[in-house]
Amino acid sequence: MRAIDWVAGPRIGHIRLIDQTRLPGSLVELEIHTVDQLVDAIRRLAVRGAPALGVAGAMGVALAVGTMPESSARQAIERLRVARPTAVNLAAAVDRTLEAFRAGGPGDALATALRMRDDDIAACRSMARRGVELLGELCPGRARLTMMTICNTGMLAAVEHGTALGVVEQLHVEGRLDRALVCETRPLLQGARLTAWELDRMGAPFDVLVDSAAASTLARGGVDAVVVGADRIAANGDTANKIGTFALSLAAAHAGVPFLVVAPETTVDPGTPTGGHIPIEDRGAVEVCSFHGVRTTPDGATAINPAFDVTPADLITAIVTDRRIVRPPDSPGAVPVGAAVPGIGALDEEEA
Amino acid sequence: MRAIDWVAGPRIGHIRLIDQTRLPGSLVELEIHTVDQLVDAIRRLAVRGAPALGVAGAMGVALAVGTMPESSARQAIERLRVARPTAVNLAAAVDRTLEAFRAGGPGDALATALRMRDDDIAACRSMARRGVELLGELCPGRARLTMMTICNTGMLAAVEHGTALGVVEQLHVEGRLDRALVCETRPLLQGARLTAWELDRMGAPFDVLVDSAAASTLARGGVDAVVVGADRIAANGDTANKIGTFALSLAAAHAGVPFLVVAPETTVDPGTPTGGHIPIEDRGAVEVCSFHGVRTTPDGATAINPAFDVTPADLITAIVTDRRIVRPPDSPGAVPVGAAVPGIGALDEEEA
Repeated sequence: MRAIDWVAGPRIGHIRLIDQTRLPGSLVELEIHTVDQLVDAIRRLAVRGAPALGVAGAMGVALAVGTMPESSARQAIERLRVARPTAVNLAAAVDRTLEAFRAGGPGDALATALRMRDDDIAACRSMARRGVELLGELCPGRARLTMMTICNTGMLAAVEHGTALGVVEQLHVEGRLDRALVCETRPLLQGARLTAWELDRMGAPFDVLVDSAAASTLARGGVDAVVVGADRIAANGDTANKIGTFALSLAAAHAGVPFLVVAPETTVDPGTPTGGHIPIEDRGAVEVCSFHGVRTTPDGATAINPAFDVTPADLITAIVTDRRIVRPPDSPGAVPVGAAVPGIGALDEEEA
Repeated sequence: MRAIDWVAGPRIGHIRLIDQTRLPGSLVELEIHTVDQLVDAIRRLAVRGAPALGVAGAMGVALAVGTMPESSARQAIERLRVARPTAVNLAAAVDRTLEAFRAGGPGDALATALRMRDDDIAACRSMARRGVELLGELCPGRARLTMMTICNTGMLAAVEHGTALGVVEQLHVEGRLDRALVCETRPLLQGARLTAWELDRMGAPFDVLVDSAAASTLARGGVDAVVVGADRIAANGDTANKIGTFALSLAAAHAGVPFLVVAPETTVDPGTPTGGHIPIEDRGAVEVCSFHGVRTTPDGATAINPAFDVTPADLITAIVTDRRIVRPPDSPGAVPVGAAVPGIGALDEEEA
């Protein structure tokens, strides 16, 4: 099963994606034939997760240039490009696919989108293997690991395998997962709804907990490592991810538990010097003040609802990508994350 | 308005309390005529909050010894005593009222319960004044303060005024509150439901936020202080409070924001040497896995649901009680919190 895929068709084809707003209750796939349908799906989080948003962006451009006159395609693509401002993958994938279109036409745009889909599958396999290896090193003598995570970084957030949850899945496949502890991830409960659904499907043992119980659960011991995804990694290693990730990193540091960011190399944005430069999307009060249409706060109550936070590099034990493992620079001469572009070595890079 | 009160009656009288499970939608008062009704109200959190539980426990004993034969009263009181294991106030108030009964009969038990109600009102007034004074010292040059809090520590958690929220109310009354930021407090949303309702009623400006957004909100600056209540304070100052309080203390420490515990002296338990000795109630999976009867996790998913966590004393800037301000010992000779019983001076105590 794939969270997002391309369905070949007589003219050019269309996008098929799992509607994540319907999980865990119903498994419903949407057939997306227009860019506006895709923008709507992205905005209401039917498709989400940085890697999946990248693939969606690329496929959306292929759809636009393959089905629309150029001027309206250009406008539709611009709406697509900015549908979620924090994830770097969406805008980057849109730009890359547009470039391919300009160089070689609609066929090249589609080929680029399909290559990005396939690359994501390969990248997640690579991150999973590398993450499991690193955990062996960070948790010596532990045959089976208890892993804590937040939000959804599984297949649903990517294409066929996940990023951080891909590492958990790989541990499970190898018989090395003791238990997964899943932060529910308010306000939209991606942990309770989506990650729990994926773990359940793969037959992995897990417990859900409210986000604010993570700190004391870590402090009590018994958690071997925390793994999280990323929406954007700044050049210095500061990482934007789902709201609550920063709080989790503080708790992991206090408890002395390794804290790993697992994300494809495409999430690293050398153009963003530090976390302070990452725009943080505020998604408004409704998600906080009501649940399934039931109001939980008094009428007229307002809310702040940042969808992401930034974890400073010094609270991250390691960043695992499909190309390398980066550890926060601990010497003044260390080269920052963003300087070590794929294929170029860096002082704090361990090529695997 | 009072969260809990005694209604005089022809025989002995009964308890009247606000059913907090119905807020913010409806303001409903329950008339409690038996200990079993009270135990049920406590277990399903119709009445909650450490100070209110103390008063409820005392009134419950008065009800039992005033209306039941001794052997069944004894059994009912034992069920009442253990209805919530973490809050020290409930068991302590039950014991104190039982002692009064043994010394002077049902009339003395009721007099003790009514005195505890009145003492709570006076204690909250005293904490509010002392807390506001301390904030003036901790936040010099700030005319109006932005305060963050978690759970509900207002009138609803006490009798007529709150503990930590009493400090916020006092700031508001004095025109010195810029805004209150209310952590929603999963899983039962006491912040979103109850604290928001109280702030709304007093006309104070506030925003609700998900618990996991507190850390980044603190890190971004603009919050002057965090105030929280306590369910039990160990002799060394470690403080058990609503789940999420510990995470909040880590975030406040990281952001350099003062973190105040505001609780009556009766919350200090000299018999509990450290936080490690405080029993933590687990309230089961249902509260985490469903909301208003709608299941949020896949069928069969399990959850861990600790209702409280322990904030170590070294993350607390000051503990404000109705008798004193205690600052965490920073010199080896400092006397621990529990040693400084009311009325007895201590090195780290500032009598006010």
